[in-house]
Amino acid sequence: MRVGVLTGGGDCPGLNAVIRAVVRKGVSEYGYDFVGFRDGWKGPLEGVTTELGIPQVRGILPRGGTILGSSRTNPFKVDDGVERIKANLAELGVDALIAIGGEDTLGVATKLHDLGVNVVGVPKTIDNDLNATDFTFGFDTAVNIAMEAIDRLHTTAESHHRVLVVEVMGRHAGWIALHAGLAGGANVVLIPEKPFDIEQVCALVERRFEDHFAPILVVSEGAVPVEGGEMSLVSGEKDAFGHVRLGGIGDRLASEIEHRTGKEARAVVLGHVQRGGTPTAFDRWLATRFGLHAIDAVHDGDFGTMMALRGTHIERVPLIEGTGELKLVDPAEYAEAEVFFG
Amino acid sequence: MRVGVLTGGGDCPGLNAVIRAVVRKGVSEYGYDFVGFRDGWKGPLEGVTTELGIPQVRGILPRGGTILGSSRTNPFKVDDGVERIKANLAELGVDALIAIGGEDTLGVATKLHDLGVNVVGVPKTIDNDLNATDFTFGFDTAVNIAMEAIDRLHTTAESHHRVLVVEVMGRHAGWIALHAGLAGGANVVLIPEKPFDIEQVCALVERRFEDHFAPILVVSEGAVPVEGGEMSLVSGEKDAFGHVRLGGIGDRLASEIEHRTGKEARAVVLGHVQRGGTPTAFDRWLATRFGLHAIDAVHDGDFGTMMALRGTHIERVPLIEGTGELKLVDPAEYAEAEVFFG
Amino acid sequence: MRVGVLTGGGDCPGLNAVIRAVVRKGVSEYGYDFVGFRDGWKGPLEGVTTELGIPQVRGILPRGGTILGSSRTNPFKVDDGVERIKANLAELGVDALIAIGGEDTLGVATKLHDLGVNVVGVPKTIDNDLNATDFTFGFDTAVNIAMEAIDRLHTTAESHHRVLVVEVMGRHAGWIALHAGLAGGANVVLIPEKPFDIEQVCALVERRFEDHFAPILVVSEGAVPVEGGEMSLVSGEKDAFGHVRLGGIGDRLASEIEHRTGKEARAVVLGHVQRGGTPTAFDRWLATRFGLHAIDAVHDGDFGTMMALRGTHIERVPLIEGTGELKLVDPAEYAEAEVFFG
Amino acid sequence: MRVGVLTGGGDCPGLNAVIRAVVRKGVSEYGYDFVGFRDGWKGPLEGVTTELGIPQVRGILPRGGTILGSSRTNPFKVDDGVERIKANLAELGVDALIAIGGEDTLGVATKLHDLGVNVVGVPKTIDNDLNATDFTFGFDTAVNIAMEAIDRLHTTAESHHRVLVVEVMGRHAGWIALHAGLAGGANVVLIPEKPFDIEQVCALVERRFEDHFAPILVVSEGAVPVEGGEMSLVSGEKDAFGHVRLGGIGDRLASEIEHRTGKEARAVVLGHVQRGGTPTAFDRWLATRFGLHAIDAVHDGDFGTMMALRGTHIERVPLIEGTGELKLVDPAEYAEAEVFFG
Repeated sequence: MRVGVLTGGGDCPGLNAVIRAVVRKGVSEYGYDFVGFRDGWKGPLEGVTTELGIPQVRGILPRGGTILGSSRTNPFKVDDGVERIKANLAELGVDALIAIGGEDTLGVATKLHDLGVNVVGVPKTIDNDLNATDFTFGFDTAVNIAMEAIDRLHTTAESHHRVLVVEVMGRHAGWIALHAGLAGGANVVLIPEKPFDIEQVCALVERRFEDHFAPILVVSEGAVPVEGGEMSLVSGEKDAFGHVRLGGIGDRLASEIEHRTGKEARAVVLGHVQRGGTPTAFDRWLATRFGLHAIDAVHDGDFGTMMALRGTHIERVPLIEGTGELKLVDPAEYAEAEVFFG
Repeated sequence: MRVGVLTGGGDCPGLNAVIRAVVRKGVSEYGYDFVGFRDGWKGPLEGVTTELGIPQVRGILPRGGTILGSSRTNPFKVDDGVERIKANLAELGVDALIAIGGEDTLGVATKLHDLGVNVVGVPKTIDNDLNATDFTFGFDTAVNIAMEAIDRLHTTAESHHRVLVVEVMGRHAGWIALHAGLAGGANVVLIPEKPFDIEQVCALVERRFEDHFAPILVVSEGAVPVEGGEMSLVSGEKDAFGHVRLGGIGDRLASEIEHRTGKEARAVVLGHVQRGGTPTAFDRWLATRFGLHAIDAVHDGDFGTMMALRGTHIERVPLIEGTGELKLVDPAEYAEAEVFFG
Repeated sequence: MRVGVLTGGGDCPGLNAVIRAVVRKGVSEYGYDFVGFRDGWKGPLEGVTTELGIPQVRGILPRGGTILGSSRTNPFKVDDGVERIKANLAELGVDALIAIGGEDTLGVATKLHDLGVNVVGVPKTIDNDLNATDFTFGFDTAVNIAMEAIDRLHTTAESHHRVLVVEVMGRHAGWIALHAGLAGGANVVLIPEKPFDIEQVCALVERRFEDHFAPILVVSEGAVPVEGGEMSLVSGEKDAFGHVRLGGIGDRLASEIEHRTGKEARAVVLGHVQRGGTPTAFDRWLATRFGLHAIDAVHDGDFGTMMALRGTHIERVPLIEGTGELKLVDPAEYAEAEVFFG
Repeated sequence: MRVGVLTGGGDCPGLNAVIRAVVRKGVSEYGYDFVGFRDGWKGPLEGVTTELGIPQVRGILPRGGTILGSSRTNPFKVDDGVERIKANLAELGVDALIAIGGEDTLGVATKLHDLGVNVVGVPKTIDNDLNATDFTFGFDTAVNIAMEAIDRLHTTAESHHRVLVVEVMGRHAGWIALHAGLAGGANVVLIPEKPFDIEQVCALVERRFEDHFAPILVVSEGAVPVEGGEMSLVSGEKDAFGHVRLGGIGDRLASEIEHRTGKEARAVVLGHVQRGGTPTAFDRWLATRFGLHAIDAVHDGDFGTMMALRGTHIERVPLIEGTGELKLVDPAEYAEAEVFFG
């Protein structure tokens, strides 16, 4: 049996842990051969491979990134993409494929499986917004990094009477903001699922100063003001190059708060620091177990499935479950946390 | 409504997060009054209290230890212990008690509840060996600390051709050893649930050197050799003061391996470093949610219960469930990890 | 003897360590009394004090911020500022003042000393740009935080073929950028002392991709393009509120590189995370020793001096030396590091 | 020009940073060739080499250990050792040698230089006990690791009324204990330079409990009781295998204190965790600069020298200076810190 492995989408701590577990168990327990595909779906599409065996996975458990590289290539957007993948797999003698990735990568995996390719999926997103699983690996690392940043900002906020805004990842779902905000003791947490009212935010800021404390706000990159929220600076105007990235929501919020309240406000934009580097123990444990169970699924011929954490167990669920709707922040869990906000 | 809060047993990162959540929600949502009891059951037994309100819980979320102090006092081993507690609670006007602790503390809570005291429990053990809950807070912190130590030892083991033994906590259950060993990429993990054969351990050590790699062993403090295992140094001989602590299992293993294999071996004993200091994000999230749900249980008059994590939900279970049998390491989960050992 | 203590300017890890050392030695060795002045020079100016003794400094060594608060108040910009300070000191019976702060705070200290106030200074700046001392406390912490961020970004840059730009503090001097870039293995380090040519920067970015590696750039917040450098996005245009802060140099560089090279580029802006939170061992050691020597200087009546690190010794130098010219990055030290850039 | 590089002695964070700097500058600025010698002096003695060039040093800056391996082989204790080294160097065409190591490794380097081998030394010891340099790399990392452990123990000591003993490295010199103890806020620091009186130590422990605080002691592995100090447990009795390692000074002190004061005492033995893993920014900066200056010394033909930090400058000093007397803890610096002890 020869198994191909690929990683797609953005970086996520734990990718290498999955690859290592797949290869270690595949070789030593099932006697499989492996082919590493480079750069996500680009690998099987263009037949770009790399050696993958015990020596290649040695020492990679604690390392960020992915030894296989990644990309956002979608073979369904390429002429004859599927045929080329099938031809390449056949030529390389690859019997099964383990695809490690997020919504897009697993979406491709789902369609390929429907078209007869033997695929097993491993879900990956630091945003934790996949429905089928309690948690995704990478999320715990991201939350800890954001929390440590908030920890560091607390004393500055207090001693120097400043408003501090921490922008964290989360384009569609506010899980990182909610968990990091809760764990870091933030005073305001703004998430994409719940458009914010800038006046209300500024009122909270002012009230906190009246109590002689300085506020820390955590905001998901995808947070937006309520309609008609009159937040001049988040209107999304483009710069000379058509980018709207210059000054993300963190910067804009800080400016707006400063302008409206007269309090000094500063933004911290953690960006890719949240997605890189060594994974936490939880993420290494989860990623490793996903890898062990994915190669078991290959061994059982249980294709079209992906791994999911349910409680402390790893289960297999249909790939389609991981690539349907996003898992947004549960309003009840947000409400529960609101006792700490404001 | 006046609620008493106490923390008992060994240190555990997240205790303060529970206390803070209980008080913040109790005050702002239910309008409760709080009484802090000092040093576990000693507090209500001797009527030693401390002020507990919003100002006292400010800034304690990231701090290790417990602002209430702790002890191992057991009121059932004291004359008239129960009567004295009841009298003190009555005198202080305390209507309900939230007891945060491990097996012993919750065992007392269970009996007191049977005797008519309004108690809600919050489970606490870094060992993660409570049956009713997926995880206990403190465990994730302990595992991360142990994993970081293992990470640091890897390059030394390789570059300097040494055997390194890391002794971690876990008197009865090997969860910390298993998770830290798995996350840290250890070569041997010895847990109390599975007595080890020193000859086999030494054989693994030697085999690894033959492959030109140096081994890292993780051992629970409660690990023991198989009967007739001929491990001269773990025979538990007492020192001049009747202590057997001088040279725990980590030191003894290192000495024994060095003696038998002729390879230099060194031990690291993390000890209380695993129980102290700031909690990880996961532990702060779990501890905070336990606190929020515990005060809800008080509000609902749902006494005799303790909080438990099931998947991503906090549930209430009868106190008795948390204080019955220990949750030992699942042999299947250990077997799953064994692909990485040796 | 009654000694006043104040902290001025921006946050800096180690402020509390200085305060603690001053008080611990002042009380236990010299039997002094202390008065804490709130919020920098605002404290003595407005007579706002806070209790300061052994109990107040307990446990503050590892904490960021300053228990005394801070501000940028300049008594020389206030009517009768000096007279009011003198009057308040007299009324409070304060014989000597220890002022902990940067250029501005020590500038005021220098002038007050000339006007007859007994002042001893302790230099403070995370930027490390004070001439009289080998290092200032806070700098080591800032460099480590920036380095850890760069460490995390490396694998992402490689695996995901992205340009990553890390903006670090340093308005006038590039010490943090240089040290963090050197320690983190950055490919380009841009500092205020050496205006950059955007074309050359983009050429380095492209050359590195040709070698199949992805570049990491570290840029001081005060870095500027060479004149005529044609960097459309760093022209400093103001936003609707007159701010130029929306999109600092980090964001602008990332956008410009993306625009010119067609490679995805992302910015990380660490901001105040670099100034807050617990100090490193080096900073605690340096800050503590500055505090011990400052109170010795008070005891010796050696006013008008500030503490300086020279090798491993703490020396006293005239205050004026710390408040003259900035210590900019030594071109030789930058040149030495250039072997790693590009 | 062909340059050999070797690393000898115990592990030390920063070894790889030196190797990388030597090679990067040697190749790109001087056009040198490199030969890596394996396992310290064993490499040139037995002619065991490994490829060493730009590809081999890529990515090693943040890694602990040494890519060249290490050993304690002393060619002067081997028949014809020097002749064999000279023959091997000649055969491999090695013109100069960079030896990175501690007292022993540099001692050999000194003698070899006297015998006509072109050697440049780079000093290495986490113990910081080399006379010629302000600091050695690795020391700052060790101190930070020990300090972080102490930070974690503080809240446990307080909340749980325990005596905690932290054993740190330092066989002959107490630098790690002193700096970590100072930075961590320890209550007692015991160093080899100053034999301790166990009765006095126990008196400090008891006095601290009377003040309602729990003590943390930091002890160098090489600390010893005063003569006639009646410390039954540090008498160094050997175990069945002739080892005295079972129960080092940390364990013995904890037992002795517990026995004498009746207070629970626990030991933490950090061991090799202090020597492994990623270096701090300071150590990477220092190690990198030592490497850059060492290859410059080779280029200048300035053999028989070693690198030393003086203030913020790297200087060359005769090898003999680094291998003479140890730099013990300065009694004045210890005395200065004593205000915090007890």
